[in-house]
Amino acid sequence: MKPLRGTELKRFLRTQPKPRRQLALILQSVAYPVNVGSIFRIADACRVQELLLTGITPTPPHPKITKVARAKDQRVPWRYVERAEDAVMELREAGYHIVALELTDASQPYYTYPYPDKVAVVVGNEDHGVTRSVLELCDGAVFVPMFGKGRSLNVHVALAVVCYHILVSSLPA
Amino acid sequence: MKPLRGTELKRFLRTQPKPRRQLALILQSVAYPVNVGSIFRIADACRVQELLLTGITPTPPHPKITKVARAKDQRVPWRYVERAEDAVMELREAGYHIVALELTDASQPYYTYPYPDKVAVVVGNEDHGVTRSVLELCDGAVFVPMFGKGRSLNVHVALAVVCYHILVSSLPA
Repeated sequence: MKPLRGTELKRFLRTQPKPRRQLALILQSVAYPVNVGSIFRIADACRVQELLLTGITPTPPHPKITKVARAKDQRVPWRYVERAEDAVMELREAGYHIVALELTDASQPYYTYPYPDKVAVVVGNEDHGVTRSVLELCDGAVFVPMFGKGRSLNVHVALAVVCYHILVSSLPA
Repeated sequence: MKPLRGTELKRFLRTQPKPRRQLALILQSVAYPVNVGSIFRIADACRVQELLLTGITPTPPHPKITKVARAKDQRVPWRYVERAEDAVMELREAGYHIVALELTDASQPYYTYPYPDKVAVVVGNEDHGVTRSVLELCDGAVFVPMFGKGRSLNVHVALAVVCYHILVSSLPA
Protein backbone atom coordinates (compact mmCIF):
# COMPACT_ATOMS: atom_id res chain seq x y z
CA MET A 1 0.00 0.00 0.00
CA LYS A 2 1.30 3.40 -1.00
CA PRO A 3 -0.08 6.63 0.53
CA LEU A 4 -1.59 8.97 -2.08
CA ARG A 5 -0.43 12.59 -2.20
CA GLY A 6 -0.91 15.68 -4.35
CA THR A 7 -2.28 15.17 -7.87
CA GLU A 8 -2.66 11.40 -7.42
CA LEU A 9 -4.83 11.97 -4.36
CA LYS A 10 -6.91 14.60 -6.15
CA ARG A 11 -7.47 12.26 -9.08
CA PHE A 12 -8.35 9.35 -6.78
CA LEU A 13 -10.93 11.39 -4.86
CA ARG A 14 -12.48 12.64 -8.09
CA THR A 15 -13.28 9.08 -9.25
CA GLN A 16 -15.49 8.39 -6.21
CA PRO A 17 -19.24 8.00 -6.82
CA LYS A 18 -21.28 11.07 -5.84
CA PRO A 19 -24.18 10.60 -3.42
CA ARG A 20 -27.72 11.07 -4.67
CA ARG A 21 -28.89 12.79 -1.51
CA GLN A 22 -28.64 16.51 -0.86
CA LEU A 23 -27.91 17.97 2.54
CA ALA A 24 -28.55 21.29 4.22
CA LEU A 25 -27.66 22.19 7.81
CA ILE A 26 -29.15 24.51 10.41
CA LEU A 27 -27.07 25.49 13.43
CA GLN A 28 -29.27 26.73 16.27
CA SER A 29 -27.02 28.83 18.50
CA VAL A 30 -23.94 26.62 18.28
CA ALA A 31 -21.77 28.76 20.56
CA TYR A 32 -18.15 27.76 20.03
CA PRO A 33 -16.26 29.04 16.97
CA VAL A 34 -14.22 25.81 16.92
CA ASN A 35 -17.43 23.80 16.45
CA VAL A 36 -18.67 26.16 13.75
CA GLY A 37 -15.31 25.93 11.97
CA SER A 38 -15.32 22.12 12.21
CA ILE A 39 -18.85 22.05 10.83
CA PHE A 40 -17.80 24.19 7.84
CA ARG A 41 -15.02 21.68 7.07
CA ILE A 42 -17.47 18.76 7.40
CA ALA A 43 -20.07 20.64 5.34
CA ASP A 44 -17.58 21.01 2.51
CA ALA A 45 -16.63 17.32 2.70
CA CYS A 46 -20.34 16.42 2.52
CA ARG A 47 -21.02 18.93 -0.28
CA VAL A 48 -23.71 20.60 1.82
CA GLN A 49 -25.98 22.79 -0.34
CA GLU A 50 -26.62 25.38 2.33
CA LEU A 51 -25.51 26.05 5.89
CA LEU A 52 -27.82 28.28 7.92
CA LEU A 53 -26.34 29.92 11.02
CA THR A 54 -28.93 31.14 13.51
CA GLY A 55 -29.23 32.75 16.94
CA ILE A 56 -25.92 33.30 18.73
CA THR A 57 -23.92 31.11 16.31
CA PRO A 58 -20.75 33.07 15.42
CA THR A 59 -20.46 33.84 11.70
CA PRO A 60 -17.59 34.38 9.26
CA PRO A 61 -15.40 36.34 8.94
CA HIS A 62 -13.90 34.97 12.15
CA PRO A 63 -10.23 33.93 12.47
CA LYS A 64 -10.95 30.83 14.60
CA ILE A 65 -13.72 29.62 12.28
CA THR A 66 -11.51 30.07 9.20
CA LYS A 67 -8.56 28.29 10.81
CA VAL A 68 -10.50 25.24 12.00
CA ALA A 69 -12.56 25.18 8.78
CA ARG A 70 -9.34 25.17 6.71
CA ALA A 71 -10.92 28.16 4.96
CA LYS A 72 -13.97 26.14 3.91
CA ASP A 73 -16.12 28.99 5.25
CA GLN A 74 -15.19 30.57 1.93
CA ARG A 75 -16.43 27.53 -0.03
CA VAL A 76 -19.65 26.41 1.60
CA PRO A 77 -22.76 28.49 0.81
CA TRP A 78 -23.94 29.92 4.14
CA ARG A 79 -26.18 32.65 5.46
CA TYR A 80 -27.35 34.01 8.77
CA VAL A 81 -31.02 33.76 9.75
CA GLU A 82 -31.85 35.18 13.15
CA ARG A 83 -34.55 32.72 14.23
CA ALA A 84 -33.94 28.98 13.81
CA GLU A 85 -37.70 28.56 13.39
CA ASP A 86 -37.58 30.76 10.28
CA ALA A 87 -34.60 28.78 8.96
CA VAL A 88 -36.59 25.55 9.31
CA MET A 89 -39.58 27.02 7.47
CA GLU A 90 -37.39 28.37 4.66
CA LEU A 91 -35.69 25.04 4.07
CA ARG A 92 -38.99 23.18 4.20
CA GLU A 93 -40.34 25.50 1.50
CA ALA A 94 -37.21 24.69 -0.52
CA GLY A 95 -38.22 21.01 -0.38
CA TYR A 96 -36.08 19.75 2.49
CA HIS A 97 -37.21 17.14 5.00
CA ILE A 98 -36.18 18.54 8.39
CA VAL A 99 -34.51 16.23 10.92
CA ALA A 100 -33.29 17.36 14.34
CA LEU A 101 -30.18 15.71 15.76
CA GLU A 102 -31.40 15.51 19.33
CA LEU A 103 -32.25 12.98 22.02
CA THR A 104 -36.02 13.24 22.40
CA ASP A 105 -38.73 10.77 23.37
CA ALA A 106 -39.52 10.42 19.65
CA SER A 107 -35.95 10.18 18.28
CA GLN A 108 -34.90 7.24 16.12
CA PRO A 109 -31.36 5.89 15.81
CA TYR A 110 -29.75 7.81 12.94
CA TYR A 111 -28.97 4.58 11.08
CA THR A 112 -32.61 3.41 10.87
CA TYR A 113 -34.28 6.70 9.88
CA PRO A 114 -35.96 6.66 6.43
CA TYR A 115 -34.28 9.71 4.88
CA PRO A 116 -35.68 11.12 1.65
CA ASP A 117 -33.38 12.66 -1.00
CA LYS A 118 -33.32 16.23 0.38
CA VAL A 119 -32.54 16.37 4.08
CA ALA A 120 -31.83 19.32 6.36
CA VAL A 121 -30.23 18.42 9.69
CA VAL A 122 -30.71 20.76 12.67
CA VAL A 123 -28.21 20.82 15.54
CA GLY A 124 -28.40 22.92 18.67
CA ASN A 125 -26.36 24.67 21.29
CA GLU A 126 -23.61 22.69 23.06
CA ASP A 127 -25.47 22.87 26.39
CA HIS A 128 -29.12 23.24 25.49
CA GLY A 129 -29.49 21.31 22.23
CA VAL A 130 -32.33 21.96 19.81
CA THR A 131 -35.12 23.87 21.56
CA ARG A 132 -38.68 22.61 21.93
CA SER A 133 -40.11 25.27 19.66
CA VAL A 134 -37.77 24.17 16.86
CA LEU A 135 -38.34 20.45 17.55
CA GLU A 136 -42.06 21.05 17.07
CA LEU A 137 -41.40 22.26 13.53
CA CYS A 138 -39.19 19.31 12.54
CA ASP A 139 -40.37 16.29 10.54
CA GLY A 140 -38.42 13.90 12.75
CA ALA A 141 -35.48 13.50 15.08
CA VAL A 142 -32.50 11.17 15.18
CA PHE A 143 -29.82 10.41 17.73
CA VAL A 144 -26.39 8.82 17.78
CA PRO A 145 -26.37 5.87 20.21
CA MET A 146 -23.80 6.02 23.00
CA PHE A 147 -22.33 2.58 23.67
CA GLY A 148 -20.11 3.64 26.59
CA LYS A 149 -20.55 5.73 29.71
CA GLY A 150 -20.72 9.22 28.20
CA ARG A 151 -24.11 10.71 27.33
CA SER A 152 -23.14 12.68 24.28
CA LEU A 153 -20.60 13.36 21.57
CA ASN A 154 -19.32 16.76 20.62
CA VAL A 155 -21.87 18.42 18.30
CA HIS A 156 -19.60 18.51 15.24
CA VAL A 157 -18.59 14.85 15.71
CA ALA A 158 -22.21 13.68 16.00
CA LEU A 159 -23.14 15.77 12.97
CA ALA A 160 -20.33 14.24 10.88
CA VAL A 161 -21.44 10.70 11.80
CA VAL A 162 -25.04 11.46 10.77
CA CYS A 163 -24.24 13.40 7.58
CA TYR A 164 -21.89 10.73 6.25
CA HIS A 165 -24.45 8.05 6.99
CA ILE A 166 -27.15 9.96 5.12
CA LEU A 167 -24.89 10.36 2.09
CA VAL A 168 -23.21 6.96 1.83
CA SER A 169 -26.38 4.99 2.57
CA SER A 170 -27.71 6.38 -0.74
CA LEU A 171 -24.69 5.08 -2.68
CA PRO A 172 -24.48 1.73 -4.46
CA ALA A 173 -22.47 -0.67 -2.24
CA MET B 1 -41.10 15.76 20.76
CA LYS B 2 -39.65 16.30 24.21
CA PRO B 3 -35.88 16.50 24.81
CA LEU B 4 -34.63 13.81 27.20
CA ARG B 5 -32.54 14.83 30.20
CA GLY B 6 -31.00 13.27 33.31
CA THR B 7 -32.35 9.87 34.40
CA GLU B 8 -34.77 9.64 31.48
CA LEU B 9 -31.88 10.08 29.05
CA LYS B 10 -29.74 7.52 30.87
CA ARG B 11 -32.58 4.99 30.77
CA PHE B 12 -33.26 5.66 27.09
CA LEU B 13 -29.62 5.16 26.12
CA ARG B 14 -29.43 1.95 28.13
CA THR B 15 -32.23 0.36 26.08
CA GLN B 16 -30.28 0.68 22.81
CA PRO B 17 -29.05 -2.55 21.18
CA LYS B 18 -25.34 -3.20 21.70
CA PRO B 19 -23.16 -3.81 18.64
CA ARG B 20 -21.68 -7.24 18.05
CA ARG B 21 -18.38 -5.90 16.78
CA GLN B 22 -15.43 -5.01 19.00
CA LEU B 23 -13.13 -2.12 18.30
CA ALA B 24 -9.57 -1.24 19.22
CA LEU B 25 -7.65 1.86 18.12
CA ILE B 26 -4.01 2.64 17.44
CA LEU B 27 -2.89 6.26 17.28
CA GLN B 28 0.40 6.58 15.42
CA SER B 29 1.91 9.88 16.54
CA VAL B 30 -1.31 11.88 16.62
CA ALA B 31 0.28 15.16 17.70
CA TYR B 32 -2.45 17.45 19.03
CA PRO B 33 -3.82 16.90 22.55
CA VAL B 34 -7.22 18.17 21.37
CA ASN B 35 -7.40 15.32 18.83
CA VAL B 36 -6.28 12.77 21.42
CA GLY B 37 -8.90 14.08 23.86
CA SER B 38 -11.62 13.98 21.19
CA ILE B 39 -10.62 10.42 20.33
CA PHE B 40 -10.92 9.36 23.98
CA ARG B 41 -14.47 10.75 24.05
CA ILE B 42 -15.31 8.95 20.78
CA ALA B 43 -13.62 5.76 22.04
CA ASP B 44 -15.84 5.76 25.11
CA ALA B 45 -18.96 6.36 22.98
CA CYS B 46 -17.93 3.41 20.78
CA ARG B 47 -17.03 1.23 23.77
CA VAL B 48 -13.52 0.72 22.41
CA GLN B 49 -11.80 -2.24 24.08
CA GLU B 50 -8.33 -0.79 23.94
CA LEU B 51 -6.72 2.45 22.82
CA LEU B 52 -3.00 2.23 22.02
CA LEU B 53 -1.06 5.50 21.98
CA THR B 54 2.24 5.31 20.13
CA GLY B 55 5.16 7.48 19.04
CA ILE B 56 4.82 11.17 19.89
CA THR B 57 1.10 10.90 20.77
CA PRO B 58 0.62 12.83 24.05
CA THR B 59 -0.67 10.62 26.89
CA PRO B 60 -2.78 11.18 30.02
CA PRO B 61 -2.51 12.72 32.52
CA HIS B 62 -2.77 15.88 30.41
CA PRO B 63 -5.17 18.75 31.23
CA LYS B 64 -6.14 19.41 27.59
CA ILE B 65 -6.79 15.72 26.85
CA THR B 66 -8.94 15.36 29.99
CA LYS B 67 -10.94 18.51 29.23
CA VAL B 68 -11.71 17.64 25.59
CA ALA B 69 -12.27 13.97 26.52
CA ARG B 70 -14.77 14.99 29.21
CA ALA B 71 -12.60 12.85 31.50
CA LYS B 72 -13.12 9.74 29.36
CA ASP B 73 -9.34 9.24 29.47
CA GLN B 74 -10.15 7.83 32.92
CA ARG B 75 -12.72 5.41 31.48
CA VAL B 76 -11.25 4.02 28.27
CA PRO B 77 -8.57 1.30 28.70
CA TRP B 78 -5.40 2.73 27.13
CA ARG B 79 -1.67 2.13 27.14
CA TYR B 80 1.43 3.56 25.55
CA VAL B 81 3.46 1.46 23.09
CA GLU B 82 6.49 3.20 21.65
CA ARG B 83 6.46 1.72 18.15
CA ALA B 84 3.20 1.63 16.19
CA GLU B 85 4.51 -1.47 14.42
CA ASP B 86 4.62 -3.29 17.78
CA ALA B 87 1.12 -2.09 18.62
CA VAL B 88 -0.16 -3.57 15.34
CA MET B 89 1.52 -6.92 16.01
CA GLU B 90 0.16 -7.05 19.58
CA LEU B 91 -3.41 -6.41 18.50
CA ARG B 92 -3.15 -8.91 15.67
CA GLU B 93 -2.02 -11.53 18.17
CA ALA B 94 -5.06 -10.60 20.27
CA GLY B 95 -7.25 -11.52 17.29
CA TYR B 96 -7.89 -8.12 15.74
CA HIS B 97 -8.13 -7.47 12.00
CA ILE B 98 -6.01 -4.34 11.42
CA VAL B 99 -7.36 -1.58 9.17
CA ALA B 100 -5.53 1.67 8.47
CA LEU B 101 -7.61 4.82 7.98
CA GLU B 102 -5.50 6.28 5.19
CA LEU B 103 -5.73 7.24 1.52
CA THR B 104 -3.55 4.70 -0.28
CA ASP B 105 -3.64 3.16 -3.74
CA ALA B 106 -5.24 0.08 -2.14
CA SER B 107 -7.78 1.80 0.15
CA GLN B 108 -11.47 0.95 -0.04
CA PRO B 109 -14.32 3.28 0.88
CA TYR B 110 -14.99 2.72 4.59
CA TYR B 111 -18.63 1.84 3.89
CA THR B 112 -17.86 -1.09 1.57
CA TYR B 113 -15.05 -2.76 3.56
CA PRO B 114 -15.88 -6.32 4.78
CA TYR B 115 -15.13 -5.88 8.51
CA PRO B 116 -14.91 -8.98 10.69
CA ASP B 117 -16.07 -8.91 14.34
CA LYS B 118 -12.82 -7.70 15.92
CA VAL B 119 -11.37 -4.65 14.20
CA ALA B 120 -8.47 -2.40 15.13
CA VAL B 121 -8.36 0.94 13.32
CA VAL B 122 -5.02 2.72 12.90
CA VAL B 123 -4.85 6.48 12.41
CA GLY B 124 -1.74 8.57 11.86
CA ASN B 125 -0.21 11.94 12.44
CA GLU B 126 -2.19 15.04 11.36
CA ASP B 127 0.37 15.88 8.67
CA HIS B 128 1.99 12.59 7.74
CA GLY B 129 -0.77 10.03 8.21
CA VAL B 130 -0.03 6.34 8.75
CA THR B 131 3.55 5.55 7.70
CA ARG B 132 4.49 3.06 5.00
CA SER B 133 6.11 0.66 7.45
CA VAL B 134 2.86 0.47 9.44
CA LEU B 135 0.69 0.26 6.30
CA GLU B 136 2.70 -2.80 5.26
CA LEU B 137 1.65 -4.57 8.46
CA CYS B 138 -2.07 -3.78 8.09
CA ASP B 139 -4.67 -6.21 6.72
CA GLY B 140 -6.36 -3.45 4.74
CA ALA B 141 -7.00 0.27 4.46
CA VAL B 142 -10.12 2.38 4.23
CA PHE B 143 -10.81 6.03 3.46
CA VAL B 144 -13.63 8.50 3.97
CA PRO B 145 -14.70 9.93 0.59
CA MET B 146 -14.54 13.70 0.23
CA PHE B 147 -17.50 15.01 -1.77
CA GLY B 148 -16.43 18.67 -1.75
CA LYS B 149 -13.23 20.58 -2.39
CA GLY B 150 -11.21 19.68 0.73
CA ARG B 151 -8.91 16.68 0.66
CA SER B 152 -9.30 15.52 4.23
CA LEU B 153 -11.28 15.67 7.43
CA ASN B 154 -9.80 16.21 10.85
CA VAL B 155 -8.41 12.88 12.12
CA HIS B 156 -10.85 12.55 15.03
CA VAL B 157 -13.83 13.36 12.80
CA ALA B 158 -12.84 10.77 10.17
CA LEU B 159 -12.24 8.21 12.90
CA ALA B 160 -15.70 8.81 14.42
CA VAL B 161 -17.36 8.35 11.02
CA VAL B 162 -15.55 5.04 10.46
CA CYS B 163 -15.96 3.65 14.00
CA TYR B 164 -19.69 4.33 14.08
CA HIS B 165 -20.12 2.73 10.69
CA ILE B 166 -18.26 -0.40 11.82
CA LEU B 167 -20.46 -0.69 14.90
CA VAL B 168 -23.91 0.16 13.57
CA SER B 169 -23.51 -1.85 10.37
CA SER B 170 -23.37 -4.93 12.62
CA LEU B 171 -26.68 -4.07 14.31
CA PRO B 172 -30.10 -5.34 13.20
CA ALA B 173 -31.81 -2.53 11.23
